[in-house]
Amino acid sequence: MKAVLVNEKNHDLYIGEVNDPILSEGDLLVKVKATAINRADLLQRKGLYPPPPGESTIIGLEMAGVVEKVGHGVSDWKEGDRVYALLPGGGYAEKVVIPADMGMRIPEEMTFEEAAAIPEAFLTAYLNMVVLGNLKAGDHVLIHAGASGVGTAAIQIAREIGAVSIVTAGSAEKLDRCVSLGANYTVNYKEEDFSEKVHEITNGKGVQLIMDFIGASYWEANVKSIGIDGRWILIGTLGGQALTSAHLGPFLQKRIQFIGSTLRSRTKAFKIDLTRQFEEFSRGKFSAGKLAPIIDQVFDWKDVSSAHQYMAENRNTGKIVLKVE
Amino acid sequence: MKAVLVNEKNHDLYIGEVNDPILSEGDLLVKVKATAINRADLLQRKGLYPPPPGESTIIGLEMAGVVEKVGHGVSDWKEGDRVYALLPGGGYAEKVVIPADMGMRIPEEMTFEEAAAIPEAFLTAYLNMVVLGNLKAGDHVLIHAGASGVGTAAIQIAREIGAVSIVTAGSAEKLDRCVSLGANYTVNYKEEDFSEKVHEITNGKGVQLIMDFIGASYWEANVKSIGIDGRWILIGTLGGQALTSAHLGPFLQKRIQFIGSTLRSRTKAFKIDLTRQFEEFSRGKFSAGKLAPIIDQVFDWKDVSSAHQYMAENRNTGKIVLKVE
Repeated sequence: MKAVLVNEKNHDLYIGEVNDPILSEGDLLVKVKATAINRADLLQRKGLYPPPPGESTIIGLEMAGVVEKVGHGVSDWKEGDRVYALLPGGGYAEKVVIPADMGMRIPEEMTFEEAAAIPEAFLTAYLNMVVLGNLKAGDHVLIHAGASGVGTAAIQIAREIGAVSIVTAGSAEKLDRCVSLGANYTVNYKEEDFSEKVHEITNGKGVQLIMDFIGASYWEANVKSIGIDGRWILIGTLGGQALTSAHLGPFLQKRIQFIGSTLRSRTKAFKIDLTRQFEEFSRGKFSAGKLAPIIDQVFDWKDVSSAHQYMAENRNTGKIVLKVE
Repeated sequence: MKAVLVNEKNHDLYIGEVNDPILSEGDLLVKVKATAINRADLLQRKGLYPPPPGESTIIGLEMAGVVEKVGHGVSDWKEGDRVYALLPGGGYAEKVVIPADMGMRIPEEMTFEEAAAIPEAFLTAYLNMVVLGNLKAGDHVLIHAGASGVGTAAIQIAREIGAVSIVTAGSAEKLDRCVSLGANYTVNYKEEDFSEKVHEITNGKGVQLIMDFIGASYWEANVKSIGIDGRWILIGTLGGQALTSAHLGPFLQKRIQFIGSTLRSRTKAFKIDLTRQFEEFSRGKFSAGKLAPIIDQVFDWKDVSSAHQYMAENRNTGKIVLKVE
């Protein structure tokens, strides 16, 4: 089959030939129609984010496609079914093998490109907002990087739960998009101190949940923004990992729960369980337009290098999708 | 009634006269027979740890005594019942009023001094090990300050759950006492790096839970000691609150949950629920000798100053109790 490969010398991407993945018991062989780009892909390409042991070395953490062959012991899927799923790797390819239990059915009116834009963004947002973040109706949630794939999913999930979202991003255009998705308050982090805005909005109480993709550079302002018994989920460190000072007092005084969270490194059993929980949560919501994959742009997979460049420049609001021909 | 009061000028303690506390609906008026000393008492005496708004300004976070009068609406307690409880304050006094729902019955063979040594130590340990720490049989738990009141309770709870405890303290004598309570491994922090010992014992996997009373000075070694998905509960900061550097990488890589936890500042409803959960967990265990309050020394409450001094010098293994005459 064809797949996007990495030139080990200069990290350039190119489409080359590799062996087809091998179908085992309980698995589905899927003909990939679309995949989507994640920040982790840019790191993996540079050799900085190796795939979990035993998994495909091909880049790509999600896909949508058509079942081509069903493994032994699988009774609820058949050839021709439209399926989308989170992947531990291998999405930038014509074919991929997934455990049947990881598959989600693509609603009838949804395109492959739309379906491919869902798994990483929505499962990450759901894991951190609901499973770890325990977000409830009426809670205030601070969502950083609101225009990112996960951010746009998080805003919608907050709205569906009935929580009040305060969203940061770096341009008026991105913030407008966040409002259209249901953001209750927005902060342009280039112009305002978000912790002051949080203080105002919550009458000094602070937020119950922070979705933190930033890390070090927002540390102090996040400490100020979080409320009593608040959950602060660290999902990424776009603003660095090294703190030059930190004070533990507020962690005791506010009983802060600071939780490091990654999805890719989780066990298969965890991911299956998460997929099933999210499917339950989202049932009917995509068809009804209550949740929607937010796609910035669809690239042909031959243009994968341009697509990566586009993400590296932070130009996207929502997901960048690759159409696999 | 008589109570231990603080001279506001020099912070000396003395026994003086104050008004009796007022019994309300749903409450018990208790004649205090014994109370116990907590580190928070030493801070409160210096004006550094004010009581929650609306609570007694008298020092004392736990007591055991006899029900002297029952408030309206209370049906399950009667005059003469032996009762012990966690308090938001007011324990260093001849009388105290508690919500009836906060009371626990003193087992027949238990003395008041023993009962007074239980609430803070065991409810704190239970909250952090079980409710927040989710400790399970077979888990490894790192317990710092193992010879403290909470430490000695935590070691016993770990043993009852079937977890493997690794306990730190600062003398061979204290560590021997920890072993007699069920500590599986001990580390003298003055002589050894506990993170190396943890590495050895867990074959590099790290612990699932850390009970951290220390904070800043143990930060790096705790980061090294914790395992994947580990819960790290910050309960105190005897080793300081200011970090001069910290790295967020391990929080993502190991999916660390770092949780600040205090008991005193919790709501009454939370404390009642915790008391009921602990009563369920400990049912029959004190009578059977499976759990035991660890008392270092009983002082007459006239000698409260000496008792405080004794704790300030870290000389105790287990609780320091005050007998209230």
